[in-house]
Amino acid sequence: MNIAFIGLGNMGAPMARNLLKAGHSLNLFDLNQTVLAELAALGGTVSASPRDAAQGSALVITMLPAAAHVRSVWLGDDGVLAGIAAGTPAVDCSTIDPQTARDVAAAAARQGVAMADAPVSGGTGGAAAGTLTFMVGASAELFATLQPVLAQMGRNIVHCGEVGTGQIAKICNNLLLGISMVGVSEAMALGDALGIDTQVLAGIINSSTGRCWSSDTYNPWPGVIETAPSSRGYTGGFGADLMLKDLGLATEAARQVHQPVVLGAVAQQLYQAMSQRGEGGKDFSAIVNSYRKPQ
Amino acid sequence: MNIAFIGLGNMGAPMARNLLKAGHSLNLFDLNQTVLAELAALGGTVSASPRDAAQGSALVITMLPAAAHVRSVWLGDDGVLAGIAAGTPAVDCSTIDPQTARDVAAAAARQGVAMADAPVSGGTGGAAAGTLTFMVGASAELFATLQPVLAQMGRNIVHCGEVGTGQIAKICNNLLLGISMVGVSEAMALGDALGIDTQVLAGIINSSTGRCWSSDTYNPWPGVIETAPSSRGYTGGFGADLMLKDLGLATEAARQVHQPVVLGAVAQQLYQAMSQRGEGGKDFSAIVNSYRKPQ
Amino acid sequence: MNIAFIGLGNMGAPMARNLLKAGHSLNLFDLNQTVLAELAALGGTVSASPRDAAQGSALVITMLPAAAHVRSVWLGDDGVLAGIAAGTPAVDCSTIDPQTARDVAAAAARQGVAMADAPVSGGTGGAAAGTLTFMVGASAELFATLQPVLAQMGRNIVHCGEVGTGQIAKICNNLLLGISMVGVSEAMALGDALGIDTQVLAGIINSSTGRCWSSDTYNPWPGVIETAPSSRGYTGGFGADLMLKDLGLATEAARQVHQPVVLGAVAQQLYQAMSQRGEGGKDFSAIVNSYRKPQ
Amino acid sequence: MNIAFIGLGNMGAPMARNLLKAGHSLNLFDLNQTVLAELAALGGTVSASPRDAAQGSALVITMLPAAAHVRSVWLGDDGVLAGIAAGTPAVDCSTIDPQTARDVAAAAARQGVAMADAPVSGGTGGAAAGTLTFMVGASAELFATLQPVLAQMGRNIVHCGEVGTGQIAKICNNLLLGISMVGVSEAMALGDALGIDTQVLAGIINSSTGRCWSSDTYNPWPGVIETAPSSRGYTGGFGADLMLKDLGLATEAARQVHQPVVLGAVAQQLYQAMSQRGEGGKDFSAIVNSYRKPQ
Repeated sequence: MNIAFIGLGNMGAPMARNLLKAGHSLNLFDLNQTVLAELAALGGTVSASPRDAAQGSALVITMLPAAAHVRSVWLGDDGVLAGIAAGTPAVDCSTIDPQTARDVAAAAARQGVAMADAPVSGGTGGAAAGTLTFMVGASAELFATLQPVLAQMGRNIVHCGEVGTGQIAKICNNLLLGISMVGVSEAMALGDALGIDTQVLAGIINSSTGRCWSSDTYNPWPGVIETAPSSRGYTGGFGADLMLKDLGLATEAARQVHQPVVLGAVAQQLYQAMSQRGEGGKDFSAIVNSYRKPQ
Repeated sequence: MNIAFIGLGNMGAPMARNLLKAGHSLNLFDLNQTVLAELAALGGTVSASPRDAAQGSALVITMLPAAAHVRSVWLGDDGVLAGIAAGTPAVDCSTIDPQTARDVAAAAARQGVAMADAPVSGGTGGAAAGTLTFMVGASAELFATLQPVLAQMGRNIVHCGEVGTGQIAKICNNLLLGISMVGVSEAMALGDALGIDTQVLAGIINSSTGRCWSSDTYNPWPGVIETAPSSRGYTGGFGADLMLKDLGLATEAARQVHQPVVLGAVAQQLYQAMSQRGEGGKDFSAIVNSYRKPQ
Repeated sequence: MNIAFIGLGNMGAPMARNLLKAGHSLNLFDLNQTVLAELAALGGTVSASPRDAAQGSALVITMLPAAAHVRSVWLGDDGVLAGIAAGTPAVDCSTIDPQTARDVAAAAARQGVAMADAPVSGGTGGAAAGTLTFMVGASAELFATLQPVLAQMGRNIVHCGEVGTGQIAKICNNLLLGISMVGVSEAMALGDALGIDTQVLAGIINSSTGRCWSSDTYNPWPGVIETAPSSRGYTGGFGADLMLKDLGLATEAARQVHQPVVLGAVAQQLYQAMSQRGEGGKDFSAIVNSYRKPQ
Repeated sequence: MNIAFIGLGNMGAPMARNLLKAGHSLNLFDLNQTVLAELAALGGTVSASPRDAAQGSALVITMLPAAAHVRSVWLGDDGVLAGIAAGTPAVDCSTIDPQTARDVAAAAARQGVAMADAPVSGGTGGAAAGTLTFMVGASAELFATLQPVLAQMGRNIVHCGEVGTGQIAKICNNLLLGISMVGVSEAMALGDALGIDTQVLAGIINSSTGRCWSSDTYNPWPGVIETAPSSRGYTGGFGADLMLKDLGLATEAARQVHQPVVLGAVAQQLYQAMSQRGEGGKDFSAIVNSYRKPQ
């Protein structure tokens, strides 16, 4: 299939590579010439603008850092909507606020373009391995169209409802994740301070009502889970600054609908303090260090 | 075996019943004459005081509401330590602060009595069915002695470390549980307010990084989990006032060792507001209603 | 002086009236025809657009609800910057985020227009009475130019530093105000629950280290301060939804610079819960009711 | 007058010195022999126990570190109530929980002894200078009796209501103080991060609605108030660990009456983190450093 792929950063580039491997023709756009050259060497075609990339493509995919980029790439003078043909399916895989997702899809719809939002989880590792989870907001018909292509970049392709619900699913899950990780950190640090062995404590929690992914799979206490970032100096996982971005989207979306999210807001501030101390690049589970005496 | 069982409330009475069924002789004490008569009818012997109950017993078990009761039942003039013989194993199953557990055990040790703390989880249902979890703080030797008897009242008998660690394990787990339930409530309420189907959202969370017992087993949103209290009007589960008790123990234990527990403290205040509104008797998952528009 | 005044809402209209009274010629713009007619009857001239209003004016003043309006009124095709002459002083009195204030001023500067931000406090009452406080971000020279005109609408004209600092001063003050009011509410409600007379408690606080405007001038407990909204059913003051707007600006500005504001974020969520319950129109001191048993 | 004075620590010793200067005869008790010798050299009489000190005294005053000491000094076998004559006025100046204050006073009342609680503020400096504030919970009659003696140790002698209300007044005021200081810290640090001059910001706050003792008298930002601990390295003021003690009393008293205190609980955790980092001995206004980038 002839696909426009716009946005070739840490996530977009490996996703595009997987589509090239699967045999698709890609019209590529990014501001970074190096990555463009790299993907052109694998068979992609470099376009001059989002508009050019979209022209003549049978599907448009974008993967961008934030809402402002999504607005300009789609709605700008040289944007996707200036080049895309009516009836072409389209999907934005960026993680942004639900309102922008809905606004841009509404603009697309006015041109006869059905557009989905499909933010991902799984990180750069999952993007490279093609094992991402896509949370898709789309009509049933559009979802059916997109599903086979997304499945070439990911393992779980989940239909969340109409456009915008992909973003909602992601920010609600990550709101909970951000809270859970702080909760596990408090429980582990308290247990340690009171004198229980942390391996034993984690074992009890993981077979009891405190059980959660942040404890049984990604425990922030060093040594509890061999494969977790906490056991390798908090490197190579999901950075605290990325968690901060998602908590920012969640609390801002909550603000817009006057929905209180008390623990979510506190968790956001705790990661913010971590970021202020210059530790935003560490895995978010390093928040546990805010609860431990200086070692 | 000749066992002293002191404290026959909502938890203690069904636990004692299971020991009677298992063939033990029980020396019983409680202030409530009705429950004493009931258990005497099942074969138990009524004692005049904790001291009398302890005299001649081969094992002493207590199950009391709070630390003050534990202190007076064990250390009072007519208390267990006034009657128990040196060398008799002993275990307190109350949920109290770790410091009191250690203090009372230290007093017992001065009389040659090895004492364990073994708070339970599983509620009155688990107490009746004999499926409780016991979190046991004891020496390896004492644990080996107690294990078979506790196994007649529960299913999981977990050794947590030395005396006091049973309490630590319980309050750390329940601290995390109290936080997680608020976290799930915020995530579900936010998703609902933003317009995603709550069943779909719960499904995504439960197969993703937000996964936790409070979501996949005990989800606070009505209708998501058929067997959860949320699907029957928040009745018959773990009352908010009991969660408040455990969060109070956790934040107080944290205070004593100068260990911050930020989300734990906020969660405690949120359940406290619920209790102030007169809803402390509802299941603790009803905290979700603090996040929903009046229906 | 020939002044363009754009934005004639609850605050802008009475401010414009005071300028008319002071003898200035006003070129007015707003979307609301009724208020335009009203001010035209007092001698103002109605303009067709912000651009038209700015053309030929010796000073441009805007007073708008939010950042999006400021951007479009100043930067739009028919905006102020399309009509204003180089060298004309300009001031935006809206309460918005500091970054937008700086961005718009930078755009103005590129056209040779020196622009200040000057958000106000004092409410609609102060706007009518001409007793507003203006927090002005401007060069010393521009401040000297604006001061006499602002003094015709307000009593305290405070120079805060370069452009943007007016907004910073306002959101930092209101962040603290929002926190203080919750703090006073907690202290008063706790004292009441424990059994001290609230008048006595307020008296002690007001002569001690807890002393603050939220207690000694605007105490949220009914009857403590006769002139406060709490003594007239929480009507006619500074609405909780306006406090929410300012706390939203503060936490968002903090997010942009990775500055934690923990109590500020919690306070925001508490007012948000109040707003969700439908009480966002009440004076913000009604937050005290979140801490009292249903009466 | 013949006065028993029990508890001669950092606060008690200078208070006793002021009573000796005023011409009273003191029967002194403390566990510290050095301070006893020192005060004996000034004319005091050393007693063998609280009981001995109380015997024959016309007034009993105690000043102790915590509730446990108050219970043992008053209720113990060698305690005050074992020696005091019926009809003797009595006052405890310790800062403790209101419930213990009421319990001990009730025990005293059963012996015909009218007892007041009268915690102080003003610190060791105020104790030495005789400028303390006493917050007195007592009947009107007892207050009238105590007032002249307390006035020899302090400047403001405030009648708060019946016994227990002295403690309530103090913990409610200090709850608010603890919150306000964090609030000022957040506002000042945010302003600084956004780029306003902190002197200017403090000036605006202090003449606006954010005005409070924590800003206008004790501002935590170095250099804003010359006489504040922040301008001398956070030494010599009210230690963070003392603030932690009072916040602990406040949140525990709130817990007992199911009264939520959300910001108070968060503030407590923030000071707790400061204490965990080993900074509990600094003035409590050093909490501002939790909000600043490492300098």
